[in-house]
Amino acid sequence: MKLDIETHLTFTLDQPTDVLLQIEAAHIPEQEILSCSLDHSAGEHFARVPANDMIGERTWMRAKGEVSIDYRASVEPCRDLSPVPSLDPLPTHLLPGEVVPYLFDSRYCQADRFQAFVDAEFGDSQGGQRVEAIREWLTRKFAYVPGASGPHTTALDSFVERRGVCRDYAHVTIAMARASMIPARYVSLYGPDVDPQDFHAVAEVFLASDDGEGGEWQPVDATGMVEAAEMVKIGVGRDAADVSFLTSFGQLNLRDKTVSVTRG
Amino acid sequence: MKLDIETHLTFTLDQPTDVLLQIEAAHIPEQEILSCSLDHSAGEHFARVPANDMIGERTWMRAKGEVSIDYRASVEPCRDLSPVPSLDPLPTHLLPGEVVPYLFDSRYCQADRFQAFVDAEFGDSQGGQRVEAIREWLTRKFAYVPGASGPHTTALDSFVERRGVCRDYAHVTIAMARASMIPARYVSLYGPDVDPQDFHAVAEVFLASDDGEGGEWQPVDATGMVEAAEMVKIGVGRDAADVSFLTSFGQLNLRDKTVSVTRG
Amino acid sequence: MKLDIETHLTFTLDQPTDVLLQIEAAHIPEQEILSCSLDHSAGEHFARVPANDMIGERTWMRAKGEVSIDYRASVEPCRDLSPVPSLDPLPTHLLPGEVVPYLFDSRYCQADRFQAFVDAEFGDSQGGQRVEAIREWLTRKFAYVPGASGPHTTALDSFVERRGVCRDYAHVTIAMARASMIPARYVSLYGPDVDPQDFHAVAEVFLASDDGEGGEWQPVDATGMVEAAEMVKIGVGRDAADVSFLTSFGQLNLRDKTVSVTRG
Amino acid sequence: MKLDIETHLTFTLDQPTDVLLQIEAAHIPEQEILSCSLDHSAGEHFARVPANDMIGERTWMRAKGEVSIDYRASVEPCRDLSPVPSLDPLPTHLLPGEVVPYLFDSRYCQADRFQAFVDAEFGDSQGGQRVEAIREWLTRKFAYVPGASGPHTTALDSFVERRGVCRDYAHVTIAMARASMIPARYVSLYGPDVDPQDFHAVAEVFLASDDGEGGEWQPVDATGMVEAAEMVKIGVGRDAADVSFLTSFGQLNLRDKTVSVTRG
Repeated sequence: MKLDIETHLTFTLDQPTDVLLQIEAAHIPEQEILSCSLDHSAGEHFARVPANDMIGERTWMRAKGEVSIDYRASVEPCRDLSPVPSLDPLPTHLLPGEVVPYLFDSRYCQADRFQAFVDAEFGDSQGGQRVEAIREWLTRKFAYVPGASGPHTTALDSFVERRGVCRDYAHVTIAMARASMIPARYVSLYGPDVDPQDFHAVAEVFLASDDGEGGEWQPVDATGMVEAAEMVKIGVGRDAADVSFLTSFGQLNLRDKTVSVTRG
Repeated sequence: MKLDIETHLTFTLDQPTDVLLQIEAAHIPEQEILSCSLDHSAGEHFARVPANDMIGERTWMRAKGEVSIDYRASVEPCRDLSPVPSLDPLPTHLLPGEVVPYLFDSRYCQADRFQAFVDAEFGDSQGGQRVEAIREWLTRKFAYVPGASGPHTTALDSFVERRGVCRDYAHVTIAMARASMIPARYVSLYGPDVDPQDFHAVAEVFLASDDGEGGEWQPVDATGMVEAAEMVKIGVGRDAADVSFLTSFGQLNLRDKTVSVTRG
Repeated sequence: MKLDIETHLTFTLDQPTDVLLQIEAAHIPEQEILSCSLDHSAGEHFARVPANDMIGERTWMRAKGEVSIDYRASVEPCRDLSPVPSLDPLPTHLLPGEVVPYLFDSRYCQADRFQAFVDAEFGDSQGGQRVEAIREWLTRKFAYVPGASGPHTTALDSFVERRGVCRDYAHVTIAMARASMIPARYVSLYGPDVDPQDFHAVAEVFLASDDGEGGEWQPVDATGMVEAAEMVKIGVGRDAADVSFLTSFGQLNLRDKTVSVTRG
Repeated sequence: MKLDIETHLTFTLDQPTDVLLQIEAAHIPEQEILSCSLDHSAGEHFARVPANDMIGERTWMRAKGEVSIDYRASVEPCRDLSPVPSLDPLPTHLLPGEVVPYLFDSRYCQADRFQAFVDAEFGDSQGGQRVEAIREWLTRKFAYVPGASGPHTTALDSFVERRGVCRDYAHVTIAMARASMIPARYVSLYGPDVDPQDFHAVAEVFLASDDGEGGEWQPVDATGMVEAAEMVKIGVGRDAADVSFLTSFGQLNLRDKTVSVTRG
């Protein structure tokens, strides 16, 4: 399965401004980058730096005036997939150090607040079955409503309002997983069939490997839009605060954003 | 300057429970561990894992019943100190990848909300002078009031209520620094003269090195309790959610906690 | 059914301080005050003022030093009771002016946030049946846990944490009723069988009278502790912010509070 | 001074829907209604009900399809004006019963959170001078930025973000006045020079009358847009949650809203 990705951004900067981009498919073993190119209009400065957990890269740029970014890539996901409901939890005391922070609260995922809820609703399941119960609950209770949430909407807000976009589904999944002592992180990615076409986001949970050797991250898309086999990951973080596609350290006017992901 | 540290914890666990400890002085170049010991009562499982940014370690333990922890260490801080107000900002586009996440919002530090405030109050300063202005503002406006805040108090709560403990001073410093495009993190540490004696916390900000080569983390204690030269660091994180001294994944009753830090 | 009430408060005031008390059974047609007395130690000033909706009174006092309050009353509730589930909604456009404010959001009852939830969970019921569905949901999902909430806990907090005391049950009932376009208010009251003995609180909803003439307030106790026939009302308001038993405009140390309600 | 007011609203309702309007100048002694007319397209039901504190009226309507509302009035304000900074506080224990609720927290005005701030910033003033200090602080620190806030923005949000519209200026004034033990309410009104022309809102505070007989409500417009002598009041409430110009109990699409206030 090959996926062809085209992303185009245009924005203007009145002053020389630092901008951080994170839009490229990550070079990681689970997905093969067959080809890729990132073209952009001239600027003062460009630098790539590794992103969170060494998954993917961010690009710093300093520029002024109109900036155009064109990213094209062909990527073949090749990840081993385990059916999440069949996976055991990894006892917390066996979690590796780099996974531990994903047990804790973050800006938009106030996991501590969901303790009583997950105990009451999902108390008879654990590990992959717990995650599956959370996903199923979201599918049943939530409505996908573009525009119903904003950049400051938290998992708690979404939980009571029962609607949102991919970002919000991911946040609630993450908060409930962490409240269940299952490490969970936020993944920014490209996927086909995202409607309307845009950057997408899902949760990942850390569960015992099915070969019994340690643990592995498993993607969970409670929106049901993208299959794990067709995800092209960009980057990971605690929640959406960590993996914006575009962060500006000064006034930026976004003129155009188009994302296209097609099966090749 | 040698500092002698003694920490004692006693707690009980009704069920076999996973517990995460982070109470030991970190083995990092800026502080020499002259001696250290961590004694604890028997348990099922112990494992050390690296903590955030590879600074210090966390200890996983699984145990049941009464648990006693005794930690003793003699540590000699030997960090190079730069006067913070004299340091330049490091332009964001020159920030290394591992520092970038410290620009973003975290659970208790909603930096985005403080943008207008820092522009209005501190708009004529930048870099180390901005940090100094923030520290000075906190010293002037805040009251150190044990018990006035709790584990869910955010930087925004503290900002309006103008009081708190070391945790809250650090959170407000961090939120305002990030809102000023200065990376900032939370440091858990031991220090003499903390009154009442307890674990302490300060902010660290990332500013240009005074030799002009990249940047360095600089501690800022807006409570004024501990000098940078006498800090013994335990660990770092985005905010207090990342560096608890004790996290339990199940019911835990804390029976006793004593911390003693004396100049040797 | 006669109820004997004894309330005792002792507090100290370091400075001359204004204090507002609301602890007396209201003189309203639905409950007959057979006898009552309010004794208090000397003070500078006392004044009674009507409370919200002209239900009950508040007592202003200005005093210094130790203050003791003894309230005793025998009260016979004699309200007409309608089974809530059988009552129709009163169309909002027929609501009298003084009831309209109880449709709106208040400090602890963010009704607007519960719109999607009540539509999804209770969408097939209205009026008294909707209220009954809300009450039943709370009974099933919530745990009565003294100490789990505090004076700043909102209906939204309680909703996600699924536990609280009478105040929190009332707030969630009110928020969900208002989100269902049913006016709802907070009632402070005395009742037998409250465990532990204390002031109690319930929600009241405004539904069509069963004689078809306008509407009436109906009490709903989602904690299940007190029957409507045995409630002795003190006062009403938008939520707990409106009907504290004791509000001090300066430092007050509460030394003792005892409430006793027994069937006579 | 005569003010001519013209308000036009057009909206559509897909279903028969209850709508609550509050757009008419209140018939109160402090302003003389020289002429007024409220024209609207046909509907199923219309009823006027008294609004909060018996100031002004609300209109219930039930309608479907396109609805047009035209309101015209000529009003001559004739209120006695006292210079706010010269007024004494009325001791809380002398406050009349109907004013007491305006001491308490409401949906958007979390007065309890501002206690430490007002003590620290305005601690050396009281009564009218305190109110003047609050107004002056807002004038100095806040920026009037249409679009920077929304219907859920609270006084606490505005306080940290230091910007907003008339609604937000009023909320912060109210919260700080209540934290200063001065009753404060929200007033919806018409005024000339509001830019852009729209409904306006200010705070009112309850201070001792300058004749020494009880207290009176005094308007305070921290935006500086409208003089007290030119305000035409529509209604009052705890905060903006209480006095919307238009509340719909079902889906409503606002097509047009124009407000014109001119000196006659």
